[in-house]
Amino acid sequence: MNYLIGMDIGGTNVVCGLVDTKGKLLHKIKQPTEASKGSSYVFDKIGLMIEDLVLQAGIEKSQVSVIGVGTPGFIDPIKGITLFAGNLRWTQVHTADEISRRTGLPVFIDNDVRMYVYGEAVCGAARGYEHVLGITIGTGLAASMINNGQLYYGGGYMAGELGHILMPEISYRCGCGMTGCLETAVSGTGIARQAREQLENGRVSIMQEWLKDSSLEALTAADVSKAFDAGDPLAVEVMNHTGMLLGKGLAAAVTLYSPDIIVIGGGGALAGERLFASMREQLKQSVYSGYWDRLTIKTAEMLDDAGIVGSALAAWGRLGIAR
Amino acid sequence: MNYLIGMDIGGTNVVCGLVDTKGKLLHKIKQPTEASKGSSYVFDKIGLMIEDLVLQAGIEKSQVSVIGVGTPGFIDPIKGITLFAGNLRWTQVHTADEISRRTGLPVFIDNDVRMYVYGEAVCGAARGYEHVLGITIGTGLAASMINNGQLYYGGGYMAGELGHILMPEISYRCGCGMTGCLETAVSGTGIARQAREQLENGRVSIMQEWLKDSSLEALTAADVSKAFDAGDPLAVEVMNHTGMLLGKGLAAAVTLYSPDIIVIGGGGALAGERLFASMREQLKQSVYSGYWDRLTIKTAEMLDDAGIVGSALAAWGRLGIAR
Repeated sequence: MNYLIGMDIGGTNVVCGLVDTKGKLLHKIKQPTEASKGSSYVFDKIGLMIEDLVLQAGIEKSQVSVIGVGTPGFIDPIKGITLFAGNLRWTQVHTADEISRRTGLPVFIDNDVRMYVYGEAVCGAARGYEHVLGITIGTGLAASMINNGQLYYGGGYMAGELGHILMPEISYRCGCGMTGCLETAVSGTGIARQAREQLENGRVSIMQEWLKDSSLEALTAADVSKAFDAGDPLAVEVMNHTGMLLGKGLAAAVTLYSPDIIVIGGGGALAGERLFASMREQLKQSVYSGYWDRLTIKTAEMLDDAGIVGSALAAWGRLGIAR
Repeated sequence: MNYLIGMDIGGTNVVCGLVDTKGKLLHKIKQPTEASKGSSYVFDKIGLMIEDLVLQAGIEKSQVSVIGVGTPGFIDPIKGITLFAGNLRWTQVHTADEISRRTGLPVFIDNDVRMYVYGEAVCGAARGYEHVLGITIGTGLAASMINNGQLYYGGGYMAGELGHILMPEISYRCGCGMTGCLETAVSGTGIARQAREQLENGRVSIMQEWLKDSSLEALTAADVSKAFDAGDPLAVEVMNHTGMLLGKGLAAAVTLYSPDIIVIGGGGALAGERLFASMREQLKQSVYSGYWDRLTIKTAEMLDDAGIVGSALAAWGRLGIAR
């Protein structure tokens, strides 16, 4: 039997999973990334994690066909290089070679969001759809498109930066250097920022009672969700506004990509209908009816496992073994 | 020697061209479409045009490998059906079968703008680029994306409707049912409409002298270009505004598609720098610098022949003959 390994190297944790060739996650282990200790340290740790994973799962390493790795940032999946990953502080890191050298296995790398969307497309909420737009709402807003079952990369492997579409309604400065990027408002960070700004401007909200002596900086998107559920007018306003902005951004993506389905994942997807109701309403108004009529919208099903399964299966595909 | 035939069925004319397998246009003939006489009449005419083309070129029909056809509107290129083409008044027309029956040759059809962009990508301004965003500015604003050398269709073959991205700056009603579509302002029609609206609102312009006794309805985008060259402030304003809007629309497309090059064609491309200067300035401001730095922008090179050559070569590719 052939096994695959899928891996997600995040700013906080490294997660490795043993996956079968049908995409079933069999066993999973997690370690803190400790990126501050340098990439060599992280790769040494990953080498040991793979040994540990194989041992815990009770298989031989020779039964593992390939390792697939998702990392944040800009990736060259052909050369196997992490070009730039801000939250790992990696620039031009030869991720695939480094992990291959430490494990003796073929390694393919890709962007973590692409792998998440690929996992959901093959085994999750978008199973059976040919044209899948996947987005993740977390610290930022990311997206990836699968067209005819194939990942869409674009020039420089840079396609899909939905979070960096400009919106006239937004005036926050973005880390990318522009002002008004969608993700500065439509993200966990963005939702908290909008609420904080309103409270600073003197708006009254149940959230102030929860914060008590903490500074406004402690406010999170989860607090806004909770306040929404309590009927707090400010929280309702922030969620509706965020959903409206997301709907406008998605309208551009739907019109250009023409997906069959939009899958929404990431921590922000936990906001659910608080965010999606106004998003759906805005999206319907902002696209030609021919798109809307054939569009399905779902939340992601696989949670954190999508990236593990996606990177394992994508690597399996790239190894060129017919399934 | 193998020959190909490329064809463009437009609302006004049918153009047929004999093309070699390297994409060189050898001979071309044109006839009025007369779509009002029904699709059967048009197909009968096309059958005769093909005979005529082969005769004039001095070759045997048996030397023609395939016919590629571009038609406007929504197309199913796999089934060979023109699903809906407003300006031909065709709904669910089996274009490929009808032409194949009258010529005895294999026929592949596709959307005319996709074929235009494919022609420019293979033989024209975008030759040698892998990721090509092509747009045509004419009566409307259309676009098509080529990713890794392959046409991007999306679900329902409906991708790329750049002209139907909504812009908060635009309040014109669009034929598609929405209000504020980019093409209602960024198109030949849209440029004329903006100028006309300003003149109706009492603005003064050299264009009024040119019109004399003609109604404002007679005003065209070419008049606005001419007035721009004469330094007419209204024309300058309309062109700059149109270029700015196009730049904003392209920013969304660049961020989502990540093209290596944008090729701008159609009659509107004749406006040249009058339109492109402000477009470029806006686009640069509205995309992450990583996109801008690697982006090339060119005007189309092949004029009306791009669609003929593109449809011939696309059909040749679909016939599955290795070049």
